[in-house]
Amino acid sequence: MPNPSAAMLVIGDEILSGRTQDTNTHHLAGELTARGIDLKEVRVVPDDHATIVAALNDLRPRFDQVFTSGGIGPTHDDITADAVAAAFGVGIAEREDAREAMRAFYETIGGTLTPARLRMARIPDGATLIDNPVSGAPGFSIGNVHVMAGVPSVFKAMAAGLLPRLERGAPLVSRSLRVERGESEIAEQLAALAGEFPDLSIGSYPFRHEGILGTNIVVRGPDADRVETAMARLRALFGDPAA
Amino acid sequence: MPNPSAAMLVIGDEILSGRTQDTNTHHLAGELTARGIDLKEVRVVPDDHATIVAALNDLRPRFDQVFTSGGIGPTHDDITADAVAAAFGVGIAEREDAREAMRAFYETIGGTLTPARLRMARIPDGATLIDNPVSGAPGFSIGNVHVMAGVPSVFKAMAAGLLPRLERGAPLVSRSLRVERGESEIAEQLAALAGEFPDLSIGSYPFRHEGILGTNIVVRGPDADRVETAMARLRALFGDPAA
Repeated sequence: MPNPSAAMLVIGDEILSGRTQDTNTHHLAGELTARGIDLKEVRVVPDDHATIVAALNDLRPRFDQVFTSGGIGPTHDDITADAVAAAFGVGIAEREDAREAMRAFYETIGGTLTPARLRMARIPDGATLIDNPVSGAPGFSIGNVHVMAGVPSVFKAMAAGLLPRLERGAPLVSRSLRVERGESEIAEQLAALAGEFPDLSIGSYPFRHEGILGTNIVVRGPDADRVETAMARLRALFGDPAA
Repeated sequence: MPNPSAAMLVIGDEILSGRTQDTNTHHLAGELTARGIDLKEVRVVPDDHATIVAALNDLRPRFDQVFTSGGIGPTHDDITADAVAAAFGVGIAEREDAREAMRAFYETIGGTLTPARLRMARIPDGATLIDNPVSGAPGFSIGNVHVMAGVPSVFKAMAAGLLPRLERGAPLVSRSLRVERGESEIAEQLAALAGEFPDLSIGSYPFRHEGILGTNIVVRGPDADRVETAMARLRALFGDPAA
């Protein structure tokens, strides 16, 4: 059975303008890989209602899980929740469970539930909440779409609560070998080896570090024995500085 | 006249698995913004021929410029050039100008043009080369698609050579105000102000730094006077710690 598949939709003008470096995708990618969920596509789109709706409706039938980040804060440019409701064709309204989660959070920090904050209690009909232990306002899941905040500390906390609820796959085994030779020098032997192991993914990533030009070879596959067999062959071919 | 639009296509299993953090998008986004070219969409896709072809053919009719990063090295998993040729329905072959550029580069570093390296001289028919002063093997432009390396130092060098050749737009003027108040506290006034300035993009980005909870308000627009007018209003509303 293939692993569950996933896509990430990053929503935010600030990423596309170069003001902010997106780090949520990298965090989520690592967490999904550890759980055997294969991240297959990432998109970044602007804070534009029609564009978000179209991206959601393109991605959600094609992947088992779709994660979004960004656009669920209290201000006028936070339009993700409305776009998700529109994509699913459902209503959206302030909800008692979201209000209660926020009220309890603000109580602990000595804040109050202002009208601006209550905007963040607007949740599409039929969605379930994703807990936000960092700043109170919840994310939500509807169908296979999981809507989280853009602020990295909040995104991470929401993902930590959400991911254990999702179906896992078989995590890929991943091993790497650092070779102090350029990619071009090892390309032919590597291609031949990849041909012998069609069940494995063998990638090569050049690096240049403190004047040393080299290649990291990464072998991935579902079967640990096969990965180890390929790694032994690689070490025999290219030597292992650690051996 | 609207600014030229652009999309970025990042190609690489290593980004989707969480092994590598993509930084090329952030670099390109800043460079494009400075030139008045609006980056409208980013996609990350795996090293899979059919997926790359489909993404290219979806993006290239919709945007003025499409930039790709990744998958043009010497190894078996570098399949971008072939996918670009397939997307355009043109042939691909080792080309004399690419070979010559690489030969000249390797001469300066005392290397030679091995068969593996010559794989990187395979260029789709009709493409023009993008210079690679860092490691020799060129990128290329075909139609409105610009194909660059994934290694960040090489990507940056290629972009630096390519971007001055592209049509510029009117760069947006961007000003920001740091307010030491939470987003929720300023949301209502900010929404009212955004309503008064429909020609400007007014974004708010919460931060938490050394115990201070605050918001960066970013005002963007084509007309510097309008941006300054809005900034003056913002300073009057929320105070300016620097004033």
